[in-house]
Amino acid sequence: MPITGPAAPEPVAHGGDLGTIRRRFPTAPQPWIDLSTGINPLAYPVAHLPTEIWSRLPTREAEQASLGAAARRYGISDPATIVAAPGTQALIQLLPRLMPTSRVAIVGPTYAEHELCWRRAGHEVAVVPDLVEASGADIVVVVNPDNPTGRLVAPRALRAVEAALLIVDEAFIDFLPPEASLAGDLPANTVVLRSFGKTYGLAGIRLGFAVAPPRFARRLRDELGPWAVSGPALEIGRLALDDTAWLQTAAQRLAADRAKLDALLIAAGFTLLGGTPLFRLAERPDAGRFVDALGQQGLHVRGFAEQPTRVRLGLPASDEEFHRLAAALQVPQKVWQTR
Amino acid sequence: MPITGPAAPEPVAHGGDLGTIRRRFPTAPQPWIDLSTGINPLAYPVAHLPTEIWSRLPTREAEQASLGAAARRYGISDPATIVAAPGTQALIQLLPRLMPTSRVAIVGPTYAEHELCWRRAGHEVAVVPDLVEASGADIVVVVNPDNPTGRLVAPRALRAVEAALLIVDEAFIDFLPPEASLAGDLPANTVVLRSFGKTYGLAGIRLGFAVAPPRFARRLRDELGPWAVSGPALEIGRLALDDTAWLQTAAQRLAADRAKLDALLIAAGFTLLGGTPLFRLAERPDAGRFVDALGQQGLHVRGFAEQPTRVRLGLPASDEEFHRLAAALQVPQKVWQTR
Repeated sequence: MPITGPAAPEPVAHGGDLGTIRRRFPTAPQPWIDLSTGINPLAYPVAHLPTEIWSRLPTREAEQASLGAAARRYGISDPATIVAAPGTQALIQLLPRLMPTSRVAIVGPTYAEHELCWRRAGHEVAVVPDLVEASGADIVVVVNPDNPTGRLVAPRALRAVEAALLIVDEAFIDFLPPEASLAGDLPANTVVLRSFGKTYGLAGIRLGFAVAPPRFARRLRDELGPWAVSGPALEIGRLALDDTAWLQTAAQRLAADRAKLDALLIAAGFTLLGGTPLFRLAERPDAGRFVDALGQQGLHVRGFAEQPTRVRLGLPASDEEFHRLAAALQVPQKVWQTR
Repeated sequence: MPITGPAAPEPVAHGGDLGTIRRRFPTAPQPWIDLSTGINPLAYPVAHLPTEIWSRLPTREAEQASLGAAARRYGISDPATIVAAPGTQALIQLLPRLMPTSRVAIVGPTYAEHELCWRRAGHEVAVVPDLVEASGADIVVVVNPDNPTGRLVAPRALRAVEAALLIVDEAFIDFLPPEASLAGDLPANTVVLRSFGKTYGLAGIRLGFAVAPPRFARRLRDELGPWAVSGPALEIGRLALDDTAWLQTAAQRLAADRAKLDALLIAAGFTLLGGTPLFRLAERPDAGRFVDALGQQGLHVRGFAEQPTRVRLGLPASDEEFHRLAAALQVPQKVWQTR
């Protein structure tokens, strides 16, 4: 029985774990600036929640209301195709356990949890550089836009995938043109994952969605079980997903901040390799050392052990954070602040 | 592939779904009093949470702090044996998917999700009346104390179970003597489930724990994946689980309210069959009609389609709620208010 079975592979390292970097650089100036994730630094304001949101089991009505808001937000006409989960990570964990042992092609390297979870569930996994190389697989996984490169596969190419199951992780697709998403016109073999926390800057509440053909959506719902998402997440999700004005303002502000960050990185001698509206991927021969140099100055960015010339940076939250990043990069203020 | 596979069995009906009963009795007096669950009606006060609890991914430190508080609360010396999940329901969903196809004996009838989840995952499930009848099964599931009967199996009898895996769902064991739990001295074949939301009256936040041998605990942790529990749940859980004064006061208040409710039920001609500190199971030949009669008066209690002479009632939250229940039961005030 698995209670005495073999140990699983080592977990993946992630951005956002400030504790580890704090221990590595105990004398770094405070407060730490965490640019190691792709989470919107401008959080949707959390309203005061009625007591029963905390005290009662989340109701079916609350879940339906959140799903309705998600359907409007993602342009989905059939609410039966949407499933709420406590973060898309929960769906990434779940999907491999629902499928019979399969040949799985993951277009990558990409967000490492996909590979880890499919392997852990005993599937035969190949990480392939593009969709062409994925042909013949039973299951194809594409992160679109990709994390960390930002590569965006055209919906047309995704619609041509002939696998029995195509999983498109659209965690970073918000703030891109809506046509980039498959969610609104879902192919019959496709499951789309949408992240709430990254876009709305509320990664702590754990909320994400799967968009799937109705029968598969029902299966996901059954496997997640009742009350899978917390009452606060459903309520805040409902409010935020229907708030188009906030989203529009956030999009403008993020675009301006992105331009500042890009200018800063270029002035610091980086080559911009790509990214999404919520993070940038940049290259410099000494990027590995640079991650440590920033760490000593209380700035946490994401390096990659396998690709030490690359660094991923989320967007600074404020002028103060831009100032500290610019100082750490030794870039004069005028280069970025006139943007 | 399962994307076109057979449909799963129908989901189980649960207490707590006020929406359905509201639609059935649209003219019932407001506000509804929900006694259909076994959730503490006296919620632990939710503190104002720092912004980063909502905005950031839950940190490893936050999870460790919650696990530490849970270890102290449940009398567990080795924190490596505790796993945090978004509610014990998430663990009930997960466990059957981790085990090879097995003969599973569930001591019951009991909380129906256990049977549903083991069956859905393809196991051979028998619901047996007691531990003796469970002998020979690979996996044994016991809800202890039982929901809804309150039957409490002695730890000694549980320790004698020779199955490869014994799952003891201790969702309602708080407020009973600590010796009733297996968590503090865990047998090598046992996984204990502990619920946070019921005891602390915060079912909306989704927090529960598994206590398991270290290797199995690690497997559960891997399968739940990173950030399985929300930041708010970890933070509120940490505060509440370390607050022994609150728990003691709650225990006293609940004991007094239980005595009132029992007096009320007996005066209304019910036989008390059992229960736990958070709910009572009572019997009357016309209990089924009684559930409807209460519904018309805006009181939601839990009936059982298979056992229409039985009704389960959670504890009223206030004198006002006791008054309305007493009026609906046509029990004079003096019977219960002097308690």
